[in-house]
Amino acid sequence: MVRAIVLLSGGLDSCVTACIAKSRGYELHALSFDYGQRHKKELESSKNIAKKLGIDHRIIKIELPERSDALTGSLSVPHNREIGKEIPVTYVPARNTIFIAYALSWSEVINADAIFIGANAIDFSGYPDCTKEYIEAWNNLIKVGMKNNGVRVVAPLIDMNKAEIIKEGAKLGAPFELTWSCYEGREKACGVCDSCMLRLKGFKEAGLKDPIEYESQEADR
Amino acid sequence: MVRAIVLLSGGLDSCVTACIAKSRGYELHALSFDYGQRHKKELESSKNIAKKLGIDHRIIKIELPERSDALTGSLSVPHNREIGKEIPVTYVPARNTIFIAYALSWSEVINADAIFIGANAIDFSGYPDCTKEYIEAWNNLIKVGMKNNGVRVVAPLIDMNKAEIIKEGAKLGAPFELTWSCYEGREKACGVCDSCMLRLKGFKEAGLKDPIEYESQEADR
Repeated sequence: MVRAIVLLSGGLDSCVTACIAKSRGYELHALSFDYGQRHKKELESSKNIAKKLGIDHRIIKIELPERSDALTGSLSVPHNREIGKEIPVTYVPARNTIFIAYALSWSEVINADAIFIGANAIDFSGYPDCTKEYIEAWNNLIKVGMKNNGVRVVAPLIDMNKAEIIKEGAKLGAPFELTWSCYEGREKACGVCDSCMLRLKGFKEAGLKDPIEYESQEADR
Repeated sequence: MVRAIVLLSGGLDSCVTACIAKSRGYELHALSFDYGQRHKKELESSKNIAKKLGIDHRIIKIELPERSDALTGSLSVPHNREIGKEIPVTYVPARNTIFIAYALSWSEVINADAIFIGANAIDFSGYPDCTKEYIEAWNNLIKVGMKNNGVRVVAPLIDMNKAEIIKEGAKLGAPFELTWSCYEGREKACGVCDSCMLRLKGFKEAGLKDPIEYESQEADR
């Protein structure tokens, strides 16, 4: 059986990515990171998703340099903003770069052939570390710099918009009810941060009902 | 003043690299990692070197996946082996990849323009993550995947052999007496691991005396 690692944040995208990897026949190993994120609830979600999918899961605690981004630092998560092309304040410096580096290390230990990541940039191209060029750059780096240079970073959602991701997940029976996308770490999803807004828009466009609860009735439309 | 990060392991190469970066006028910030290495003594060395050079220094503790390499795992460090082109058992999966990923994250926080690393592959080409192609792959990845895409990974020793590195260090007044190269973590350097053997050969070829003490008299020639 071919083995793969999936970076499982606990969000919707990584959940669908795990379902895709599973459907491709991989023996899956999920990896999550406790990096001091405000929305720690996603770590609980990652546990629940891994359990539901019946896959191995580990959470690695990492210490990032002190910073001022809005997911881990002192800035506030913006609400109801217009999502554009600029890099948002929720960008955590080199976060995916650190995550992929760890996954690569683990891939050599367990002999994994692929690292699945839920990166996608169609709806939300503000993050430089979620693009096709970025994934290609990793695969180039692996070829020259790894012992196990046959491992590949795979981003199956890279060309999908949020509605397409949700439709694909629905087809594969992804447990959306267990996912957590909100940047805030409260009881219910806020409905007004970038991540909630994109998720709600995606469900609406996909013609599906988002099974999770939201604080904001207006957003829960 | 232009700012740079230097990956400071506590070994000879990273010490010379720090001296080179300093001589180029950078405001230097040193970064070391406690990754469960057998030779923890190098962390003490990194502290002493940073102090001697008068540069900012931090040690980040990282949790690598459990493995069986000879620097952190259950294998023994090989002694008196013929150093060839194969990947040695002291290879720690994706170690430099994780280190550089962290340095990149930090570089965005402190607005550093360069990350200096002591990678070199002339004398010891067994490590895939110490080659010119590997450094180039990083600089390509940075261009497409970082917010601060002007930062560069710089490996000033990449084309030097050990004797040349030592001569360059001597010219810049590198505190060789504070460096630790041995893969074992004992009181004195063993003199017979790959790292000690290369170091001793380098000093011999450079026509200089290695100021540190060795266990093995034979090696201490």
